[in-house]
Amino acid sequence: MSALSLIPSREFERADGNLSLLADMCRANALVAVKRAGSGHVGSSFSSLDIVVHLLWRELNVAQVGWNDPDRDIFFSSKGHDVPGLYAALSALGVIPAERLLLLRRLGGLDGHPDIGVPGIEANSGSLGMGLSKGRGLAWGKRHLGRGGRVVVMTGDGELQEGQNWEAFAAAAHQGIGDLWAVVDRNELQSDRPTEEILALRDLEQKIAAFGWHVETCDGHDHQALAAAFASFRAAPPDVPKALVAHTIKGRGVSFMEHPQALRDGNGLYRWHAGAPDDETFARAHAELVDRIRAELPDLVLEPVAVARVEGSLEGEPESGSGTPSRRRAAVTDEYVAAAYGEELLALVEARADVVVVDADLSSDCRVRAVEVEQPQRFVEVGIAEQDMVSMAAGLARQGLVPVVNSFASFLAARANEQIYNQASERTRVVYALHYAGLIPAGPGKSHQSIRDISLLAALPNVALVQPTNAEETKAMLRWAVEEAEESVGIRLAIGPSPRRIELPGQTSFGRGHVLADGDGPTLVAYGPVMVHEALVAAEALTARGVQLRVVALPWLNRFDTDWLVDELGAIEDLFVLEDHSPVGGLADALRRSLGTAVAVTAFGVEGWPACGTPPEALAAHGLDGASLALRIESALAVAAGRS
Amino acid sequence: MSALSLIPSREFERADGNLSLLADMCRANALVAVKRAGSGHVGSSFSSLDIVVHLLWRELNVAQVGWNDPDRDIFFSSKGHDVPGLYAALSALGVIPAERLLLLRRLGGLDGHPDIGVPGIEANSGSLGMGLSKGRGLAWGKRHLGRGGRVVVMTGDGELQEGQNWEAFAAAAHQGIGDLWAVVDRNELQSDRPTEEILALRDLEQKIAAFGWHVETCDGHDHQALAAAFASFRAAPPDVPKALVAHTIKGRGVSFMEHPQALRDGNGLYRWHAGAPDDETFARAHAELVDRIRAELPDLVLEPVAVARVEGSLEGEPESGSGTPSRRRAAVTDEYVAAAYGEELLALVEARADVVVVDADLSSDCRVRAVEVEQPQRFVEVGIAEQDMVSMAAGLARQGLVPVVNSFASFLAARANEQIYNQASERTRVVYALHYAGLIPAGPGKSHQSIRDISLLAALPNVALVQPTNAEETKAMLRWAVEEAEESVGIRLAIGPSPRRIELPGQTSFGRGHVLADGDGPTLVAYGPVMVHEALVAAEALTARGVQLRVVALPWLNRFDTDWLVDELGAIEDLFVLEDHSPVGGLADALRRSLGTAVAVTAFGVEGWPACGTPPEALAAHGLDGASLALRIESALAVAAGRS
Repeated sequence: MSALSLIPSREFERADGNLSLLADMCRANALVAVKRAGSGHVGSSFSSLDIVVHLLWRELNVAQVGWNDPDRDIFFSSKGHDVPGLYAALSALGVIPAERLLLLRRLGGLDGHPDIGVPGIEANSGSLGMGLSKGRGLAWGKRHLGRGGRVVVMTGDGELQEGQNWEAFAAAAHQGIGDLWAVVDRNELQSDRPTEEILALRDLEQKIAAFGWHVETCDGHDHQALAAAFASFRAAPPDVPKALVAHTIKGRGVSFMEHPQALRDGNGLYRWHAGAPDDETFARAHAELVDRIRAELPDLVLEPVAVARVEGSLEGEPESGSGTPSRRRAAVTDEYVAAAYGEELLALVEARADVVVVDADLSSDCRVRAVEVEQPQRFVEVGIAEQDMVSMAAGLARQGLVPVVNSFASFLAARANEQIYNQASERTRVVYALHYAGLIPAGPGKSHQSIRDISLLAALPNVALVQPTNAEETKAMLRWAVEEAEESVGIRLAIGPSPRRIELPGQTSFGRGHVLADGDGPTLVAYGPVMVHEALVAAEALTARGVQLRVVALPWLNRFDTDWLVDELGAIEDLFVLEDHSPVGGLADALRRSLGTAVAVTAFGVEGWPACGTPPEALAAHGLDGASLALRIESALAVAAGRS
Repeated sequence: MSALSLIPSREFERADGNLSLLADMCRANALVAVKRAGSGHVGSSFSSLDIVVHLLWRELNVAQVGWNDPDRDIFFSSKGHDVPGLYAALSALGVIPAERLLLLRRLGGLDGHPDIGVPGIEANSGSLGMGLSKGRGLAWGKRHLGRGGRVVVMTGDGELQEGQNWEAFAAAAHQGIGDLWAVVDRNELQSDRPTEEILALRDLEQKIAAFGWHVETCDGHDHQALAAAFASFRAAPPDVPKALVAHTIKGRGVSFMEHPQALRDGNGLYRWHAGAPDDETFARAHAELVDRIRAELPDLVLEPVAVARVEGSLEGEPESGSGTPSRRRAAVTDEYVAAAYGEELLALVEARADVVVVDADLSSDCRVRAVEVEQPQRFVEVGIAEQDMVSMAAGLARQGLVPVVNSFASFLAARANEQIYNQASERTRVVYALHYAGLIPAGPGKSHQSIRDISLLAALPNVALVQPTNAEETKAMLRWAVEEAEESVGIRLAIGPSPRRIELPGQTSFGRGHVLADGDGPTLVAYGPVMVHEALVAAEALTARGVQLRVVALPWLNRFDTDWLVDELGAIEDLFVLEDHSPVGGLADALRRSLGTAVAVTAFGVEGWPACGTPPEALAAHGLDGASLALRIESALAVAAGRS
């Protein structure tokens, strides 16, 4: 990795109210934090930073009164993935220590998306579209309690495709919440393509005004214009909420990251939305920022930081729109089950006229870009609007088509849950690809980790839930879901690289698992490449200690072949189930329902809120890494032996 | 009940294209169907019927080509509660037999909200805001498959408060789905109050146009104007979606049900949104319609229909906005746990400065109207927007307030699921009142019945789920949730009257149940007034057959006092759990997790999709009525005895 250095907090004091300079200084530090973490969102950190700096240094009272004063102005970002920029600003203001800035996306460090556990962070966000509603609650609360202070919510422009924003726009106007300010970071790019291509916002100012807001528009990098816009807010009627559409440039501050040049360089795709740049690119970007800063502060001091290799930190860190796998760092293996999914999906689209692929602006991460490019007439892009996506798919299915619906599991299973219920109640068939299922990668934090998706869908009468173990099984199960299943199917998919290539001893059969490590000891059932790997690690550790753990990969999460189940699991004294899911509502619950009292099932699942960190950190934090599992199993066996 | 009579299908043929006359004839029959069912939505059936008739008799091809032709025009209502009017029209066209019209909201009859199991119904709807997305999917599918026919979706105006509509408006314009037509039944009233009061839509035409649609507006009861509007749609660019804002009158056709007179008569509340009119009112309304029809068809034939009392059909049928309990028919008891909730909530608001009540246009059904009227400064109305409601509550909670959030369980737990996750992740406390939880009443159908809410929330690390057994316990548990609980709480509430007054032997203690019927036989655990009643009925039936069933009311669904649990349930050979919830993810699963293999748990839950019908019909259809339960328990005991 390149040598990294931070601009220390005291240097910011020397910038003496030069807001453009301060923003560049924050950009430099945010870039270092992202580089150090190996992931994070540079593009929109940079587009939003002039606004963030203007608010924190100039417009809002919070730097003066502190982050605990009830009368403070409240600022937070609804999109949340611009948080590296905000962290850099908070660090510059002394709210976050510099050393913590270097713990971006690490356990006990700074969450990959905003979390109120971090000083200066006012709201949990990261799943899009909730911020204006929450900000209205904060502002209503302030007014009700007689507290001072405004509430300023930053939103993305692509984010406004989420319908909840329009609920919030309407309600804020109706309720007369004039102390709610929205600032739209109008950088005109979504994850990797222009908003106008994905789902045009049209005349955004007109729309927001039609919903009853006072609307200003300005150049979001021009501090005089920002000052004028905010001044006009202060002069506007006190009972009218205010929105600023701030026109910005994604990647602002680094020439080759700036839209539109960057878009041309990327042949229509923006490459700097998420993910850390490689060493050479980082060096160029950082140098460009530092050169510009030094034009104002020639004696700028940079403090080198230690850059010990972070185990696991660079493996399989996905992002909304993190782009092509080639930009990811070397993986533990080069198997990505999601890539296998994408290949098989393209093959199915080519082979069958009835398959339609539906996407909510995660085309790249969900590996459906090949379909989008090669079979555009079979690809539907709905923008960032999961509810609309699911109900549209329900309509497609009623025309006899087989829609394959894509998003991250945490968004699809939760936000569109009622729409999935409605679709399933029509007894049509839709395939739900639940990408980024589970705990890992853990860098993006709890807004993105999905530990409830099984519980959210398993009570639907006619939705089968599966998670394939390796690339081949992913293809087989997708084919089954499209061609053979008699009900809707939710396919959980790991988004990162497989920690090992898992060979399966036979074909995948409905409702049956694979015995991967046979032994005369207890049995550990797991699903998905990440957790089956940990199960195998546990077995290896236990073998060395004389315990022959039987490991079963069970890709069926709520549909079982009863004969197989009884034969393979029905007579086991101690059955352990490993889940990258809450222990409530996952596979262990389903097995208990099916096996009755014949088998004592112990679940090792994600207890509490999912930890943010590197994969090893997060797994260990939950006791779900192979080594911890071996100890937990030994301990459980000892307790059982003591009882008997 | 009054003598009821229907206008037979053949009389409609004589109306000879007189669309206003046909609409009135449909109104008369829809009114009879609702009266017969004891519930249903008259107000918006009447406001929408001119449009429905105009579409089905004049504009669309479906009556000609039939409901199975792939090239047919597709029409459905997104709001769905106007379906009695549509059923009447479909019956007039011969699609639905007249006798089935008399089985509105009955098992095997016509679902209380649209279900594709009924001829002529094109989409499941009833939960608001999904229709434009689904219609776009249907239209995209038609275009893709080269099929003819437009897709016309009726929406309410209040319904447009749901954000998903704005996702769909944006996407339809962007995707150029010109064969999608939206017709907004702009009757200016929501459940019982004006849209402008609840959440103003402002200049609706301007808003929809700003989202890129071709917009027309007209009098929705003027067939010439409707014809002109639809003609302009046909002349408009083929790749632009079309919306008609049709200004209508809620209750149209019956003078005293028409807005605005009806609103004045109701002192600002509209009384005819839902629920069947009483005998005298029905007679007046029907006579007024028939008189007007006879002005055109003097020899109109009315066919009397049998009106045998329908057991249970009139008990506890709630609706979105069904209004005050006084309009409901005599109940089995006069205890409503929801009413107790409303009383206690008002007391808490009066006693504590930090309690704020939040509502999404179900103020009356959720029994929060008293707070709204008496403590308006502590009441927040967000309109029909559950996601916005929850995130706003999250913001209120971050200001230290204790928001009590109200909606039906099926909407709140599912549609706002990700927002609840986000709120809970901030470790604030919000009380979620999950009204109309469970299977009963079963007349509104599967869009409204809630059989998944426990599964949807139980995997959240810090949300306790409870369902009180009677009115007193409801008050105690709400008080506990507001004043003592250290986490967020979801309170399941039955919406209808309690089938019996259940005396509890002692105070409610955290995590403990009540032994209601002690015996030396098996134990049946149940929760909520409806299911505990059925459990007691089962116990009574079994006593007569020599089995002493022990009945335990357990109001804690995912939090248990372990000592109590082990003492009371830990040594039971056969533990039966009765749930008005899916057997997946409910109390039985939680007990299995807690009790391990010591106890064999058998769940009697709602298998498959919830049945629509009267309470006895629906309970019996799922084998969950007391008599069925007694048989199922006997049968299970016999099997167990045979095994041992």
